[in-house]
Amino acid sequence: MAEQPQEQASPPIQKRVQDSFDRQGLMTHLGARLTHIGPGRVHIVLPARAEVTQQHGYVHAGATSAIADSAGGYAALTLFDEDSEVLTVEYKINLLAPAAGEHLEAIGTVLKPGRTLTVCQLEVYGVQGDGARMLVANGQQTLIRVARPAQ
Amino acid sequence: MAEQPQEQASPPIQKRVQDSFDRQGLMTHLGARLTHIGPGRVHIVLPARAEVTQQHGYVHAGATSAIADSAGGYAALTLFDEDSEVLTVEYKINLLAPAAGEHLEAIGTVLKPGRTLTVCQLEVYGVQGDGARMLVANGQQTLIRVARPAQ
Amino acid sequence: MAEQPQEQASPPIQKRVQDSFDRQGLMTHLGARLTHIGPGRVHIVLPARAEVTQQHGYVHAGATSAIADSAGGYAALTLFDEDSEVLTVEYKINLLAPAAGEHLEAIGTVLKPGRTLTVCQLEVYGVQGDGARMLVANGQQTLIRVARPAQ
Amino acid sequence: MAEQPQEQASPPIQKRVQDSFDRQGLMTHLGARLTHIGPGRVHIVLPARAEVTQQHGYVHAGATSAIADSAGGYAALTLFDEDSEVLTVEYKINLLAPAAGEHLEAIGTVLKPGRTLTVCQLEVYGVQGDGARMLVANGQQTLIRVARPAQ
Repeated sequence: MAEQPQEQASPPIQKRVQDSFDRQGLMTHLGARLTHIGPGRVHIVLPARAEVTQQHGYVHAGATSAIADSAGGYAALTLFDEDSEVLTVEYKINLLAPAAGEHLEAIGTVLKPGRTLTVCQLEVYGVQGDGARMLVANGQQTLIRVARPAQ
Repeated sequence: MAEQPQEQASPPIQKRVQDSFDRQGLMTHLGARLTHIGPGRVHIVLPARAEVTQQHGYVHAGATSAIADSAGGYAALTLFDEDSEVLTVEYKINLLAPAAGEHLEAIGTVLKPGRTLTVCQLEVYGVQGDGARMLVANGQQTLIRVARPAQ
Repeated sequence: MAEQPQEQASPPIQKRVQDSFDRQGLMTHLGARLTHIGPGRVHIVLPARAEVTQQHGYVHAGATSAIADSAGGYAALTLFDEDSEVLTVEYKINLLAPAAGEHLEAIGTVLKPGRTLTVCQLEVYGVQGDGARMLVANGQQTLIRVARPAQ
Repeated sequence: MAEQPQEQASPPIQKRVQDSFDRQGLMTHLGARLTHIGPGRVHIVLPARAEVTQQHGYVHAGATSAIADSAGGYAALTLFDEDSEVLTVEYKINLLAPAAGEHLEAIGTVLKPGRTLTVCQLEVYGVQGDGARMLVANGQQTLIRVARPAQ
């Protein structure tokens, strides 16, 4: 999936997503970074450091979910104009396998955009140093579009 | 809810839960701490620092979910013997209101224990400095009991 | 829970909910009926007939979910004026035990009302002929308020 | 999606799934029928009759969910031997659009099989008389494998 060429969002949209991401204290604190911003599709990578583990040394479900949630939210944001923000209404995620690997890659993909509500698919892969990938979590998320607060 | 006296788990169970929590790199990294370990019920508090925010300065849904998920997992763990571990199978969480406050308090409560699967209710409150509380997230979680790996 | 006296919604609201329920072909076809309409809380009873079973003779998860979904939707509807309708955005339900009994009782309760989105808790009990009750399903539902289509 | 040739499950597996389906009183009562039984993938069709509607004349979310849940359950069952049964642990479903059409087609697909737990993706399409298709619901389901009760 990461192999195929990925369509990029326009530079203004990429900038808007990146700027918002950079204001998320949690993403910086976890060490996560945006690696792809396409129309309706965003990737976030999280290196598997000790700071994001659960008690067995795998990445914590909370960290796995955090990057999945952000990837879905930004995937939705790419589809709206600059006066819009999106908020997570809810999500559901299955942890399919221990989140092992050198890093995790979360992929948020818009399944159904809408004027008010948008639904995204969430996938998280564990990626080994040699590039081997395994689906470790899969989810579904509902987001709501709101007017951007005046600065 | 926090006002009523809370039943405590036995000291060995409290120790087992605390030891496991202390091995969760993510909980330490986020600044979360266990504040109550009762039979089938665990509380986790997360101070609202800049390191756990989303782009608007509220606590990130990922951090909110992380403490909710851990609270549910440990609530289940209190019901099993020392040869058991629990893993999150899946959870669903609604973000009901901006996660504002001086700190968040996640409460995990076992709704239905089982030999294989256990279902927990997850609640997260935003707590102001004066003690005012507001439900900011509500969820439901499925866990599986597994044999503890030999040390 | 069914023992405590239940607050009733106002007669016009009760009529509005009952009229809408009566237009749901599925509820009639399943044999379900409204048994309580309170403010933010609705009960629906489903007799356990062969027509609603799965392959082992218990009530089918689909029938269990159908009455839970309707109970939540009508619980939300009691809180809005007559120009509003509610639609289910999504729900998640855990099937906790085989849905056995003489009938099922679904209880939908508004957890967080909102101008646009409302979140409900869903519970379904299996009720024996002697009144013994067991929680057989528990869920969480998101609804959206929309303007009622002109008649 | 329905256009591509579909791999069929072996005749004994097809028979086992069909026999179980035929014992589901609810599926018969709703008028649903199995239309494809492949390895890890099952389709169920539900004609849009008045008996399965909600108050606006669309198919009720409960009926939509019922066929989605059964499709996922049987998709999982195709992967196990005859001594196994599967039970739904939980599912989450988003209703993406009014469930309109001449009939609905639910597709259950195994996303992650497992010895104890299996996770399926659930999709429901509204299909018009001319074959036009629209995704009306999307979900995710967790199932547990259990030993088949002795007959």
